[in-house]
Amino acid sequence: MKKSVLVTGGAGFIGSHVTRHCLEMGFEVIVLDDLSGGFEDHIPEGAVFVEGSVVDHDLVTDLFNKHKFEYVYHLAAYAAEGLSHFIRRFNYNTNLVGSINLINESVKHKVKCFVFTSSIAVYGKGQLPMSEAMTPEPEDPYGVSKYAVELDLKAAHEMFGLNYVVFRPHNVYGENQNIGDKYRNVIGIFMNQIMQGKQLTIFGDGTQTRAFSYIDDVAIPIAHSVEKPAAYNQVFNIGADKPYTVNELATVVSEEFGVEADIKYLAARNEVLHAYSDHTKAHEVFGAGTGIDLKEGIARMAEWAKRVGARQSQEFGNIEITEKLPEGWGIVKKTLV
Amino acid sequence: MKKSVLVTGGAGFIGSHVTRHCLEMGFEVIVLDDLSGGFEDHIPEGAVFVEGSVVDHDLVTDLFNKHKFEYVYHLAAYAAEGLSHFIRRFNYNTNLVGSINLINESVKHKVKCFVFTSSIAVYGKGQLPMSEAMTPEPEDPYGVSKYAVELDLKAAHEMFGLNYVVFRPHNVYGENQNIGDKYRNVIGIFMNQIMQGKQLTIFGDGTQTRAFSYIDDVAIPIAHSVEKPAAYNQVFNIGADKPYTVNELATVVSEEFGVEADIKYLAARNEVLHAYSDHTKAHEVFGAGTGIDLKEGIARMAEWAKRVGARQSQEFGNIEITEKLPEGWGIVKKTLV
Repeated sequence: MKKSVLVTGGAGFIGSHVTRHCLEMGFEVIVLDDLSGGFEDHIPEGAVFVEGSVVDHDLVTDLFNKHKFEYVYHLAAYAAEGLSHFIRRFNYNTNLVGSINLINESVKHKVKCFVFTSSIAVYGKGQLPMSEAMTPEPEDPYGVSKYAVELDLKAAHEMFGLNYVVFRPHNVYGENQNIGDKYRNVIGIFMNQIMQGKQLTIFGDGTQTRAFSYIDDVAIPIAHSVEKPAAYNQVFNIGADKPYTVNELATVVSEEFGVEADIKYLAARNEVLHAYSDHTKAHEVFGAGTGIDLKEGIARMAEWAKRVGARQSQEFGNIEITEKLPEGWGIVKKTLV
Repeated sequence: MKKSVLVTGGAGFIGSHVTRHCLEMGFEVIVLDDLSGGFEDHIPEGAVFVEGSVVDHDLVTDLFNKHKFEYVYHLAAYAAEGLSHFIRRFNYNTNLVGSINLINESVKHKVKCFVFTSSIAVYGKGQLPMSEAMTPEPEDPYGVSKYAVELDLKAAHEMFGLNYVVFRPHNVYGENQNIGDKYRNVIGIFMNQIMQGKQLTIFGDGTQTRAFSYIDDVAIPIAHSVEKPAAYNQVFNIGADKPYTVNELATVVSEEFGVEADIKYLAARNEVLHAYSDHTKAHEVFGAGTGIDLKEGIARMAEWAKRVGARQSQEFGNIEITEKLPEGWGIVKKTLV
């Protein structure tokens, strides 16, 4: 009999790739997704789709009662880090309480391993490179919610023996990314802007650096982690090693679309200037990555983006605090009118 | 015109004392309390009582719109640390999301200072004495929720300029404590057990130590912190310096009631063995404490407890995980029948 697994956020970017790899591993895959950021047509064929939110604990309870999940991959999240300052309650409900619903049921149903995608947002403005040996000190509500789930998983392991694997991915990009989301995913935002003939927008002067990570280097280790006992009850940074400035990124993306980089610089946001992670620990357990570099990864994603076309940006309707909302996230008038 | 302040949890133990000190400071005091752990007759005369929960964000919004709060004292919490493993969702909803509702409104209404009672539970099994210079690593859902609020307050300060003071009190006891709560407050539990002619119950062998802190050494600095700019955007341990074993405590309490300590030892819980804090920082800003030692504090509390009598223990009806629920918290059958 096939092992049954739950992938939350399986219609989303990383989740849809993890779902595909799980199907290839021979699992029966149940996808739970509320389609707030994902798309039903991204769910790979062969997976069973349940539309709903991890916040709906009755639904979560029903799912666990119905299926005997061997493993849970929890990727559902509202991952707009910068926006999280302005949607605090929504952030903690979705990203923390939703996760807790899954942890509760995983304890009760004795799930063998709970795989959680956290974020480098947990580190805050720490030393570089970010290393799993550091004690995180997150500095925004999104990072706080992710770190709280990590700590709760550790507590659940110690109290109830629930095994977990925590991944902290680093600025992931690739096919199936929601390029219509204006609050996050700079590469998708750039592609969407280029395809709409708009200027590329950068917060600050573009010298901030990130180690943009191609999806395969993230989704494959996540999917296979349940079969690596050495990964159990461990935290892993995951993604690319080489940081690029956002200006360099703009150039690479523009070149791929055959246009000159035309950049509009906006006021800087409250964000870390530089971020790159040490991946030694992940390489030891999961092996080296795919070797796909930024140019190759961008080429693959661009090919996909040109094929599916630009999607219309979705606006987030429930801003809780409008003070200091960054320029271009101009939702204020819409929600106040 | 009097300054208006909000005290959440003002019908509770620490909150009722903070309310009293705030009234003495000349504030108009609005108490918000859902009476889940507090008692209306503990609210000092002169305060305005609103019955409701911090989780009810419409109510919280209304209160902030109606009153122009100068300061917010947030003491409402479900503070049963040991039970938090078994009521994860309830814990995060009450202790984190409820706090976020208040932080949102405090940002929007430009509250001058947000005073938050955290807990030594944030430290986890760290080095002793616990010091504010350490980076916390909480190990149970209660501690995680408290630490998440601390981090969120820091983020709110950096993004929006909201001033805060965080207190991490240490095993507080005194008049108005809910001695009918069987999940927490060992001193209250002992007094209740003695007055009911029952054996004193101790988890483990009673050699675990805590620095039991008399209420005045906690509530007075909390109330006055809003008028001490040196305290703003700082974290303070607060409470007594001297640790006692739970066995020693049982002796002191029994002596005060004129009985022999008759102890029933239960299986050890998952809890830290020793805990005491460094209070140098608090002493520098708030001065030395009252000098009331354990014997004197217990005498005062016992006098009160004898007068009001033992209250019936309330049972918590919404246990989410029943596995490994400690002996004596035998709620399982009641909720399953």
